Formats: sequence, structure tokens, C-alpha cells
Amino acid sequence: MPRSANVLTPLWKSIAATLRSAIADGQYPEGSRLPTEADLAARFGVNRHTVRHALATLIEDGLVHSRRGSGTFVLSKPLDYPLSERVRFHRNLRDAGRLPGREILAIEVRTATEAEARRLSMTPGDEICVAHTLSFADHTPIALAESHFPEARHPGFADALRSSRSVTDALATVGVADYLRTETRLSATIANATQASHLRLPEGAPLLLTESRSESDGVPVEWGQTWFASDRVTLTFDFQRDQLP
Amino acid sequence: MPRSANVLTPLWKSIAATLRSAIADGQYPEGSRLPTEADLAARFGVNRHTVRHALATLIEDGLVHSRRGSGTFVLSKPLDYPLSERVRFHRNLRDAGRLPGREILAIEVRTATEAEARRLSMTPGDEICVAHTLSFADHTPIALAESHFPEARHPGFADALRSSRSVTDALATVGVADYLRTETRLSATIANATQASHLRLPEGAPLLLTESRSESDGVPVEWGQTWFASDRVTLTFDFQRDQLP
Repeated sequence: MPRSANVLTPLWKSIAATLRSAIADGQYPEGSRLPTEADLAARFGVNRHTVRHALATLIEDGLVHSRRGSGTFVLSKPLDYPLSERVRFHRNLRDAGRLPGREILAIEVRTATEAEARRLSMTPGDEICVAHTLSFADHTPIALAESHFPEARHPGFADALRSSRSVTDALATVGVADYLRTETRLSATIANATQASHLRLPEGAPLLLTESRSESDGVPVEWGQTWFASDRVTLTFDFQRDQLP
Repeated sequence: MPRSANVLTPLWKSIAATLRSAIADGQYPEGSRLPTEADLAARFGVNRHTVRHALATLIEDGLVHSRRGSGTFVLSKPLDYPLSERVRFHRNLRDAGRLPGREILAIEVRTATEAEARRLSMTPGDEICVAHTLSFADHTPIALAESHFPEARHPGFADALRSSRSVTDALATVGVADYLRTETRLSATIANATQASHLRLPEGAPLLLTESRSESDGVPVEWGQTWFASDRVTLTFDFQRDQLP
């Protein structure tokens, strides 16, 4: 962008602002096609070069993308999902204006392997409960999770989860009223066939993987892995907010 | 693992522990091949089934991987890199027992686009300094970064960076003695050809992308994106450590 653009009347800028508001207002919803350059030029009474300049700023901001020969499309805005020591899936989604949903795909009770036992401060062979869940925002899958719970330490947890379908409620049933996330590890991975199918993504799509442990009074109550569809969710962490007393 | 494994003498367990120590001690360094199953069976005086059981626990823990027909290899352990409000690359790596290295690939001064200006609280067209850097752990590339600095607000920053090659020193030269990261956004992406070449990874490898802004007295001093080679770095965040007073 040349410096002179700030001196002349920035027509492209007001067009970009108008399109930005129209997208924000839902006039052009996610996935929809914007009017053609020719239509926009006619509507705003400018030449196509000016329209292209305005569209370029929307592309740079990740609001739209242009597909050669088919036009300019409104991108889905990834959901901002705050990382915090409390697991607040439903609240996070409602705060973002999305409809939260969670489906429990499977609940199994089996003996812990050495690595699983270590993560839950148990003995290998102790019973653990493993839950596989799929989370949704506005009916679109956003995350696949595998959570491990120390069944031997909290007998009845799996049954409580099977009937309540809520981890928080099931933990409360076995006497764990409150728990906090202690450590979270973040990495990136590639969707395998199963993950791709659950998350409705192409195989090989990038996934953000979090591994975290939750504790109650210093004792592990959950260890889990969550795979987020990276084009639909951005994890955020605000250092200052969380460090204020 | 059947429950009875805990009742009988767990030979496989002591073999796994021995191999684990040998790997930790550097007796089998990263990338090296472990002795064959037959060699290990002879050395420990057990059958190959027991050796296979021991190796399976090392595979489960991500310490080694098995390549059909070629043997079992020691995996590079990803570097644990703590996310914090202070950018402490050299210290983080030294704490992890790795040799830190950073190479500045390019430094350019140009006018800010609308999006760049917004992120740095500037006016589009204002001068910014953009630095491209590559970070190393023990001479292996681990992260590629693109950092934006408000040159117009801190004239001379780019020249200071060109001569000192250190962001902290260059900021100090223009009067920014201290700065903190305010917000970090995390997502996953796939390495393009340029990123793959710099990071010595195959194209399409998963990368962990962080976007963060640093401020000094409430004014942005840097906005940057960092692409981490996900198989070499795990970002960690300990809620409890950072929340204690």
C-alpha cells in the first residue's frame, strides 16, 4: 500500500468497511459468495481496481477467500476458545455466541496400561474409565476427545457417566465436587481417517492437540487428549487477564 | 495387559525400566537403533515375547518406534517449551538442557497494511520493521518466526536489530527496557514448501502456530507469528505455577 493512499480519499477503505459490516451483520453468511467485482464496482460507483483493493484487505484479514473463476467467499471465522484452568466448554461456546453440543461416542472400563496409570497416579492394572466424546459448535464438530478417569479410585464413575452423560455431574456423584486443570501440553498433528470422519474434515487436515490433567486436592481425577479442528477453533490465552489477582 | 501380570514377577517391567534408563543415560541416543529382539532376549535371559512386551510399553510412551523389518529406534523427545508472558527463548532451551540458537534470516522496513497497523495500534502506511528468524535447539531447527515491530514509533529499531541481532537489545536501544506478552493465540497448520525447507521437515508436516502481541506500558511493541515443528517442540502451560502469587 503506497503512503499516498492515506492522503487521497481512501474509497477502497470505506468499501472494505461496508463489506466488513455486511459480513459481521450476517448479510453475507459464512460460506456465501460476495457479489462479483463488476457488481460491487457498479454498486459503489468505483472502478474494479478499487473494489479489488478493498477485497484484498478482507482477504488479508482472513474474512474472505478468493477462488479463481468462482468468486470471493466468506470464510468461517474460527471460534476463539479460551484456555483456562477450569474446563468450561458450554460457557465458552455460549460466550462466543455459539450453540454448544457434546456427544459421548463410547464409554469403556478397562485396566490401565503403565503409561495411563502413571498419568493418573495409579497402579498398572487398576481399573480406569475411558470416554470418547465429540464436541459441536452450532452442530459443526469442533473437537474429538479421549478422557481417562481413575475408576478404581472413584468406583461407580462410569455408571454415573453412562446415566448422566455429563463428566461434571458424574464426578460430583462419586464425590469430586471441584477440580482444576494443572498442566496443559499443546502440539499439532494430522487427522487420521477416523478423526477426519468424526470431525468432517479431509484426512491430513491439521489438528491442534491438547493433553491435560485435572486434579482435585492434588489427586488426578482426569487425564485427557483433545483434538481440535484447527480451521474451526483457535485456542487463546490471555496472560494478563489470568495473572491479575 | 492382564491383571495377572501384576501378580507374577513382571520381568518385562524390569526390562522396560532398564531400557528406559539406558535411553535416558544416552546409551542409546536419539535416532539410534536398539539391539534386536533376539539380542535383547539373550542379554536378559528371557523369551522374545517378554522382550516384545517390554518394547511395547516403550512404544506406548513414545520413547521408541518400531519400523517393520529394520528394528526399533529411539525417538527424539520433543522439547518442552513453556508458554509464558515473558519471551525467554534462550533460558527455556538452556533449562531443557539444549543449546539455543537463533538466526535472523531477513530484516525489512516497509509500510504497514491495514491489518498490521491494527495489530500494532498504528496507522496504515506507518513504517514497520519485519524480522524473519529461525530458531534452533542443538543445531536442529525448531521454529520459524515473523515478527512485526512499530518502526515509526521506535525509529532506529531496524538499524539496532541489524547490528545487535538481538530483539531484546534492539528494543532496549530505542528505549523499550521491558515488555510482556499479553495474548497468545494457538492453532495448527501444515508446512508449506518454504517452511518445510527452513525447518527441514517434509511439506505437509504439522506445525503449531502461535500468534502473540507484546506490550510495554500498554503500547504494542511487537506482534508476531511463530511456526513450531510439532514433532520437535511441545508447548506447555502450567496453570497452577503461574497462578501462585
